[in-house]
Amino acid sequence: MPGEALKRIYLAGPEVFLPDALAIGRAKVEMARDAGFEGLFPLDQQLGLEGLPRLEQARRISLANEALMRSADLLIANLTPFRGVSMDSGTAFEVGFMRALGRPVLGYTNVPGDYRRRAEAFRSRGIPSADGDRPDLEIEDFGMAENLMIAVAILESGGSIIEVDAAPGTEIADLAAFGRSLEEARRLLPG
Amino acid sequence: MPGEALKRIYLAGPEVFLPDALAIGRAKVEMARDAGFEGLFPLDQQLGLEGLPRLEQARRISLANEALMRSADLLIANLTPFRGVSMDSGTAFEVGFMRALGRPVLGYTNVPGDYRRRAEAFRSRGIPSADGDRPDLEIEDFGMAENLMIAVAILESGGSIIEVDAAPGTEIADLAAFGRSLEEARRLLPG
Repeated sequence: MPGEALKRIYLAGPEVFLPDALAIGRAKVEMARDAGFEGLFPLDQQLGLEGLPRLEQARRISLANEALMRSADLLIANLTPFRGVSMDSGTAFEVGFMRALGRPVLGYTNVPGDYRRRAEAFRSRGIPSADGDRPDLEIEDFGMAENLMIAVAILESGGSIIEVDAAPGTEIADLAAFGRSLEEARRLLPG
Repeated sequence: MPGEALKRIYLAGPEVFLPDALAIGRAKVEMARDAGFEGLFPLDQQLGLEGLPRLEQARRISLANEALMRSADLLIANLTPFRGVSMDSGTAFEVGFMRALGRPVLGYTNVPGDYRRRAEAFRSRGIPSADGDRPDLEIEDFGMAENLMIAVAILESGGSIIEVDAAPGTEIADLAAFGRSLEEARRLLPG
């Protein structure tokens, strides 16, 4: 509506590490706008990091992302497995951050199926113990797509974990499930 | 000091999944007490979950942990890799949660070395794309042990990521680095 500020959605996920991250971010922001929201994509920020020491670059990115989250009304997290059984750890941090602020968090994954099934597949490949698994380690079995802290935060927000079976190689980038999370956001934050 | 409430530390980490989780929790709580703190170990709570549906069990555990974090002055996270390149996703959620509350978060890992090295080792094993890696995916390279959101939260708290090289098989459970995080907690929250 003219003159009215759009509700702001922080777009969390590991697609920031894709070679076409900026294009994917723009696509997410555009889908968010079509749904009536302002999408906040972390990489979009102009931070002027060139020439700074690595540690200072990391510090500025982190603090800018935290400020962006504090300015957001809701977060949609890409929970797709990232280099292991679980989602990206930075995204998990961000889900917890927004949850502590009392704001809704929604999520989707492009690798369907519950945590238990993925952890069993990971274990069956026989991995070194430095990768963080042992045969006697309990596997969480609540029928949820992710660790219960993440999954319950989403359910308690009034959302669900949207699951889509993306084609191999497109798991991190596919946006079909994201579109359905935006529909949940419209229901939770009506215009 | 008699009559004075001890500062409370939330003990976050994947050791809740070990078969001897309660014993490890008790050991952490005892070490925390020796350092002058009350340690809060998630599994210690009496939640009466028997007979409840799985989803309701998960909900109660999550909400109890969130309440426990809100009651804590500081969090120490076990960042040791868990079923992949990164830390346990539930622990990452908890680091973000406490960070948003403006409380210090400290961390340790029993698998030394930076994120980049671990991600390269993971990639070199040739994994299916459903495990969340692709050859063209950027690997974060800030010389930090974890994703920058996690690592910077710890540094900004005034702590460091304590690294110890634990023996194979003891990576998740070893407590030497935890003891050093407690020393940092004493510096940050003096009696």
